[in-house]
Amino acid sequence: MITPRTLKGFRDDLPETMMLREKIIDAVRDVFRSFGFCPIDTPALEYLEILSGKGSEETDKQLYKFTDHGGRQVGLRFDLTVPLARFTAEHIGELGTPFKRYHIAKVWRGENTQSGRYREFMQCDFDTIGTDSIASDIETGLVMYEILRKIVGPDFKIRINNRKVLSGLLEKLGLADKATAMLRCLDKLGKIGREKVAAEMVQFAGATPTQADGVLKLAELTGSNEEILDSLKPMLAGNATGEDGIGKLNTFLSAVAAAGVPNDRIVLDVSIARGLDYYTGTIYETFLDDLPQIGSVCSGGRYDNLAELYTKQKLPGVGASLGLDRLLAALEQLGRLEKSQSPVDVFLPYFVESRLGDYLKLAATLRENGIGVEFYPEPKKLGQQLKYADKKGFRYAIIIGEDEFAQNVCQFKNLKSASAKEVALCDLPNEIKQVDFSARG
Amino acid sequence: MITPRTLKGFRDDLPETMMLREKIIDAVRDVFRSFGFCPIDTPALEYLEILSGKGSEETDKQLYKFTDHGGRQVGLRFDLTVPLARFTAEHIGELGTPFKRYHIAKVWRGENTQSGRYREFMQCDFDTIGTDSIASDIETGLVMYEILRKIVGPDFKIRINNRKVLSGLLEKLGLADKATAMLRCLDKLGKIGREKVAAEMVQFAGATPTQADGVLKLAELTGSNEEILDSLKPMLAGNATGEDGIGKLNTFLSAVAAAGVPNDRIVLDVSIARGLDYYTGTIYETFLDDLPQIGSVCSGGRYDNLAELYTKQKLPGVGASLGLDRLLAALEQLGRLEKSQSPVDVFLPYFVESRLGDYLKLAATLRENGIGVEFYPEPKKLGQQLKYADKKGFRYAIIIGEDEFAQNVCQFKNLKSASAKEVALCDLPNEIKQVDFSARG
Repeated sequence: MITPRTLKGFRDDLPETMMLREKIIDAVRDVFRSFGFCPIDTPALEYLEILSGKGSEETDKQLYKFTDHGGRQVGLRFDLTVPLARFTAEHIGELGTPFKRYHIAKVWRGENTQSGRYREFMQCDFDTIGTDSIASDIETGLVMYEILRKIVGPDFKIRINNRKVLSGLLEKLGLADKATAMLRCLDKLGKIGREKVAAEMVQFAGATPTQADGVLKLAELTGSNEEILDSLKPMLAGNATGEDGIGKLNTFLSAVAAAGVPNDRIVLDVSIARGLDYYTGTIYETFLDDLPQIGSVCSGGRYDNLAELYTKQKLPGVGASLGLDRLLAALEQLGRLEKSQSPVDVFLPYFVESRLGDYLKLAATLRENGIGVEFYPEPKKLGQQLKYADKKGFRYAIIIGEDEFAQNVCQFKNLKSASAKEVALCDLPNEIKQVDFSARG
Repeated sequence: MITPRTLKGFRDDLPETMMLREKIIDAVRDVFRSFGFCPIDTPALEYLEILSGKGSEETDKQLYKFTDHGGRQVGLRFDLTVPLARFTAEHIGELGTPFKRYHIAKVWRGENTQSGRYREFMQCDFDTIGTDSIASDIETGLVMYEILRKIVGPDFKIRINNRKVLSGLLEKLGLADKATAMLRCLDKLGKIGREKVAAEMVQFAGATPTQADGVLKLAELTGSNEEILDSLKPMLAGNATGEDGIGKLNTFLSAVAAAGVPNDRIVLDVSIARGLDYYTGTIYETFLDDLPQIGSVCSGGRYDNLAELYTKQKLPGVGASLGLDRLLAALEQLGRLEKSQSPVDVFLPYFVESRLGDYLKLAATLRENGIGVEFYPEPKKLGQQLKYADKKGFRYAIIIGEDEFAQNVCQFKNLKSASAKEVALCDLPNEIKQVDFSARG
């Protein structure tokens, strides 16, 4: 006998988890689609040369790679961005621009499982490719806002910034050639504090104390979106890059306000720098008000050239990635998920063995009326069947014995309150439709 | 520069295909759920010992296998049945029975691509585990019927049989020990004809000509469901296995009729034998009336013991597998799919650059009203934007220039008929809702 087990770092998704995941994915997809984003999929396996050297040193080490039947070096995708670059280079002629896609799929990384990470997990990305119009940056923010609003409710903040603001300041201070090192230091501001960051900027990035102070002054700006923009203007006056960044942030914030986003939901945060080498314009992070410690649940930004390794065509784009697993864990922690082990609310026990056809006919009628119903397959004792219904979390049971069949009625039982009422079978669909199922999306 | 390409036997799913696939999967999932089937997922990678030796010699050869970072022998799943067996053995104590699950996921096989097969494809399975009640066999048939009816329309037939009928006959004819060889010969009836099958039964299975004739007589029974059942009774009289099979077919056919399935949609076909060693009771095949040559689009059956390699607990079950890719290809061939490159029908060109916020506000209002809309991100010439809209297959465009903004109206243009009418912006959501989008599910 073989021990049934999954590999270390892998896990089965049981119905309870899977139903929540499907529900969230459905909601996310609806938002993507309502903005005109299309789904795509790419193979789990790619040529190794497509995948290796495209992420970090770490992702290279974590790559699941092997030689296939035909002697090809292949690997399992470790993210959806590298496949998107390869996909876009291959198909953009046919697809045209702007190309707006979403991709919700599994990726694999041989992570150290001690960190609590899984080696197989789902990513959920959306991008607009082939345009550098700020309108797409704004739309990206609006998509994030809609998704979070629908899934989480009102308690979140999307923080935005524009990399050009910081780049402009570094240019103005004469630190353009030290940008990466400076950003690496600045990235630690939240963790180690101003003084240490300033010291590191001098020690590791080769800045003067005055230059370090200038960069930190900018990163520390706080206040309303308008107040921060007002403070930025004199700091970047005369620098074209910085002024462009401020202009884009200004356009962004006015447009999302015009589109109906409350002022405090998308906020300017000049301290965020994300993706040191990759992002070049707008950048996004999203935090839940009640669980800031779990980190950003949706992040992204604008990049200059998606697929430069595969095509000479310059493909700028903007997009973001939604942390589905993190979001699911957060909603669970916040008690915002109603768990269930059944996709339907109504249970139909099999009570009178000879009436199989009648039970199935009733179930078919309910389904015709849009009411999902689970029929128990064995004519066991009613108590046993109701125990099953209870374990699975059904809300209602339709109980019909020989007497009820003779009179064309049923006992419509609320399993939570244990109350029951007699309902004519012909009225049952309408009776059930009047019941409040609102808590179950 | 790296050539952007997918591995042989693998393919990208572009938006047009992916949208059709998502639409069909959504419809299938809705049916599964309405009967109380729950989704699960399992890892793409399993321990090699779980996968190898579980399918045929061919699947063993086709297995993608390698050694992972931790020195484990692992493989990519080649179907969803082996993972289901492993999953069920591991979790059935927690889940309880009956356990009804569906699983829609990719599998991988290093197939010979010359046959036109792909090395990565989607499977869509559903099963009821832990009960041998005929009610679950019936429900499996009803699920198949509902799915086909919703996706294909009325032009299909589900053929059913019960393996006990043939087993009973083989017992009665004294061929019980030659069952597998006899079934292997019988399986060729459609291809090589009666005479050659009879000869092979004698030559390879060791039957007498009279025994071969007896088996063929049964397999060749035709007529209405009732006529076939009537003919079977004398042939199997006195054999308990065969009589049990006839009784179960009878119960099955009466119950699906009671549940509202038209008589000619689920038909008895005693010639089908499927899955020589695996299935033990009801078996199912489904053919499209207009495309019988593509083979069965949904097949399955009842089995006695799902997970005997992993647990001592006996787990009977019944289920079927829907050939999503085959179905998609068939619907395309039948011209039943309306293809589109956009998930929404309404296009909003960006006409007046300074009005970005106003366009986004209008788009937000439409989405609030459940109307998806794609906004073009660049204020290019209107002709260029409409060319894009045309290529993507949008049906309607909302055209607003400075004059329209000033008067709070828009030109609501039908892109197929090229007709347009002026509509007040406040009336636009209702105007669009009245439009017939029915052809786009």
